Amino acid sequence: MKRTFGMIVLLGMSLPLFGIELTFGEADRMIEARKAGWLEKAKALQPTLLHETLTPTGIVTIAEDPSGFQGWKITGRKPFQPAPDFVLDFGRHLTGYFRFTLKAGRRPLHFPLRLRLVFGETPAEVMGDPDAKPTGLSRAWYQDEVVTIDFVPGEIALPRRYAFRYVRCTIPEYKQADGLFAFDGFFADAVTSADERKLAPCPVRDPAEQRLDAIARHTLRDCMQTMFEDGPKRDRRLWLGDLRLQALANYETYRNRDLVKRCLYLLAGLSEKDNIVCTDAYDKPVPRAGVCRILDYTALFAPTVLEHLDASGDRETAEDLWPMALRQLQYTLAPVDEDGLFRKAAVWCFIDWDRDLDKQAAEQGSILYGLMRTIELANRLGHRDQTAAVEPLVEKMTAAARRELWDANRRLFVSGPGKQVSMASQIWMVLSGVVTGQEARDCLVNAAATPGVRKPLTPYLRNYWIEALDVAGLRDDARRELMAYWGGMADRGADTFWEGFDPGDDFFSPYGNPLINSCCHAWSCAPCYFLRRWAKTR
Amino acid sequence: MKRTFGMIVLLGMSLPLFGIELTFGEADRMIEARKAGWLEKAKALQPTLLHETLTPTGIVTIAEDPSGFQGWKITGRKPFQPAPDFVLDFGRHLTGYFRFTLKAGRRPLHFPLRLRLVFGETPAEVMGDPDAKPTGLSRAWYQDEVVTIDFVPGEIALPRRYAFRYVRCTIPEYKQADGLFAFDGFFADAVTSADERKLAPCPVRDPAEQRLDAIARHTLRDCMQTMFEDGPKRDRRLWLGDLRLQALANYETYRNRDLVKRCLYLLAGLSEKDNIVCTDAYDKPVPRAGVCRILDYTALFAPTVLEHLDASGDRETAEDLWPMALRQLQYTLAPVDEDGLFRKAAVWCFIDWDRDLDKQAAEQGSILYGLMRTIELANRLGHRDQTAAVEPLVEKMTAAARRELWDANRRLFVSGPGKQVSMASQIWMVLSGVVTGQEARDCLVNAAATPGVRKPLTPYLRNYWIEALDVAGLRDDARRELMAYWGGMADRGADTFWEGFDPGDDFFSPYGNPLINSCCHAWSCAPCYFLRRWAKTR
Repeated sequence: MKRTFGMIVLLGMSLPLFGIELTFGEADRMIEARKAGWLEKAKALQPTLLHETLTPTGIVTIAEDPSGFQGWKITGRKPFQPAPDFVLDFGRHLTGYFRFTLKAGRRPLHFPLRLRLVFGETPAEVMGDPDAKPTGLSRAWYQDEVVTIDFVPGEIALPRRYAFRYVRCTIPEYKQADGLFAFDGFFADAVTSADERKLAPCPVRDPAEQRLDAIARHTLRDCMQTMFEDGPKRDRRLWLGDLRLQALANYETYRNRDLVKRCLYLLAGLSEKDNIVCTDAYDKPVPRAGVCRILDYTALFAPTVLEHLDASGDRETAEDLWPMALRQLQYTLAPVDEDGLFRKAAVWCFIDWDRDLDKQAAEQGSILYGLMRTIELANRLGHRDQTAAVEPLVEKMTAAARRELWDANRRLFVSGPGKQVSMASQIWMVLSGVVTGQEARDCLVNAAATPGVRKPLTPYLRNYWIEALDVAGLRDDARRELMAYWGGMADRGADTFWEGFDPGDDFFSPYGNPLINSCCHAWSCAPCYFLRRWAKTR
Repeated sequence: MKRTFGMIVLLGMSLPLFGIELTFGEADRMIEARKAGWLEKAKALQPTLLHETLTPTGIVTIAEDPSGFQGWKITGRKPFQPAPDFVLDFGRHLTGYFRFTLKAGRRPLHFPLRLRLVFGETPAEVMGDPDAKPTGLSRAWYQDEVVTIDFVPGEIALPRRYAFRYVRCTIPEYKQADGLFAFDGFFADAVTSADERKLAPCPVRDPAEQRLDAIARHTLRDCMQTMFEDGPKRDRRLWLGDLRLQALANYETYRNRDLVKRCLYLLAGLSEKDNIVCTDAYDKPVPRAGVCRILDYTALFAPTVLEHLDASGDRETAEDLWPMALRQLQYTLAPVDEDGLFRKAAVWCFIDWDRDLDKQAAEQGSILYGLMRTIELANRLGHRDQTAAVEPLVEKMTAAARRELWDANRRLFVSGPGKQVSMASQIWMVLSGVVTGQEARDCLVNAAATPGVRKPLTPYLRNYWIEALDVAGLRDDARRELMAYWGGMADRGADTFWEGFDPGDDFFSPYGNPLINSCCHAWSCAPCYFLRRWAKTR
């Protein structure tokens, strides 16, 4: 805290600092008094998961085919029949458990039965070889098991949770085992904290939009567990940036406001000693903070609290978390210089999975956006006095952005010393209101038309692109963009939307090996949020 | 039943048949009336297993070394410390379960932890590659698992039972996982129905003998589960031939007579519709007969019942099972021709794991032995009338053996059309009393000195060799033979005695791949039976 505080001094924000310091000091005292209680509240809000038992629709034959997603295509479907190698299709994506029952055979099972099971969200996943290609993450994210069965008849219930639609089962000693056992049934126990009985009626009427709404909703459903997970296959973590998008989609669909509340309390309760909010967390076996701290995610804490207040009217929680929301400014504003410009931060700036993206403009916008929403939250809660000292920064940062990052000739924002043109820059400049109206429309349109422009690589940033287009009054473009991008996943057979999608490269993976990709990823659930909202305000 | 009965007619035993037929008919009626009750009795006798929690003595380093058993040698021991690949030593062989606890690390476990665990009865087993060599049995007998762990801290309890002393743990992503978890403890839950509190005091005084007694006793202990298993690693089955040797060893050690009784009831209760006793059975998940039917094992049912009566005084059980004991004669005598000679049977004759062994003489002896013991059992139970019709066969079979199989010049028995000389032939001729005294001694000594004589390949037949030497009055030879053979295993580091041991070939396996061998095998527990009996009758 001292370090961060010191940076602000160094950056020369001495004028407004006195007031902020007092405010942050008071916020710190309140946070410390409340923090343990926040974790208690998170615990009390832990949902009981809803269970649904599914049986496979049958088995599918999957063949290598360059026209299929990642080179594999379903070429046939038939009722289950035993084979040395078969793929069960549960008919839909699910997060949950797998079990199967075995009958005794004509002759006793006189050796252990060894099976390999692979759980996949896509056909390509179950057909792939996880060891053929390295990954920057862990090979263990590939969902495969070797199961050895000693006794039949019996039920074999795998203890781990998987995210899957397909289950491939390979029996190396199939021939020897013939007549010694028979599969009696396969069952999936799908778990979620999304309650279909509470699902808001869908106002979307267009069939193509309905299709994307449904896929997005299923994505959200399968990520809704005891917390909002980023992806139920990987990494099963609560990320503040993903949470915000999940919360927005959830308000339009399953309306599980308690789950949002629980997640806000988890992230606040798991904040480090410096009272900077946790931006990635685990809740099993006990709540624990991850080691990542993302600057632009931190900036989204106040907006997420504000949206929770708007969606639920839960003033008590917003009031409870207010010192936390306020306190984050000390962190997000630290890398902003005396002229109101974001220079460079020795912390993780995410924005998008794009290593070559210059993030200056996007961070400038993110931080400013967070600041504005914090002030708005203060306003709503009657704490305007506590943000008075930082309010001048809104104009200062806006002016700095226009002065330093706006290219008046090309009518778009550039970023960094190389004056890079990216959609990320325009998006966050628009969302933070640095430009509005025609300027906003111009920068979005001009940047998109710029040769070599860096476009979003993740659905996460893609979501903010849609939002920015909408904010700029380009809803038709927003809709077109959304339908094209998420429709591209749907056209490739997505049951749930993916963590990464490059329309030009089916094998895109931020982690070296696409078999490790998460194909049900919460930050990709935007369609049900936008399409439903638009349908209501058409 | 008709088929077997028909064979007897065909073989021309028409004279004694009328009486036998009546007797067998009555036995069949009694068996059918009692069979379900036998399974009920077996169920009622199911023991509650005793549990002992063990922790490793530390880790061992194992290096390739031609002087070690199967090419591997323990070269060092040290307290546990984490490594990408380590072998735990539990200090003794055990049958049971494995669990371990993990602590959370400095940083959260941000990917699943994937471990490979191999359970081994010997150092070579955990170091081997089960897929490098095929096996005629199943690769699944190799005790390895891939375990993926999602959460720390936590306890990971593997659900399967293993037979092991060593546990090798390999962590492919050890480097990445450093600091994310720590091993907190390793535990083995050893299970047995052998109660140390009921163990008979050991009368053996010689340290070398005591060593073999202890190893044999541990072999027996780890095979004593809810039934007498042949081997707790493989095939975890109750075999009548093995049971007999286990029962004899058990009477001298753990004295769990109820377990013998349960096993007799299981084998009788699981007899097929033709009322021929089951010679291999499973008791989990529910009692079930195996598909094997071994002629020479069937012949051992009556002897085993008789010995149970002797050891326990349990006349009720012997009486209950008497019709079953009697009824087996119809099966075992079927391949004996009108002259009293065993010709050839279209059933499995085991005797030993030796494909090139001619089994005529040994089966002649086994069947005759069973017949004699059945008559003795009848005598003891006052049912001599029921065996009257078969009693003349004792002399007839003895005479046939002497006439057809005895080589008077070489003073030993030969077998089959090739007049093969094997220890198996001498052993069973001696045990069945075809020869006694000097002739018995001569045939055993002469055969052993014959170039190319087929010697026992399994401890099972080796056991009967020891017995035959003893019966023939050659106890010193018996003791020497026992100490040399079982001592050979002990010298190679055996914690429990093995299913197969060829002093000239450490890699001997009846199944192609020594990694599949069972190294705790009940038919090898003879030392504690002989050494204790001899110590008492010295």
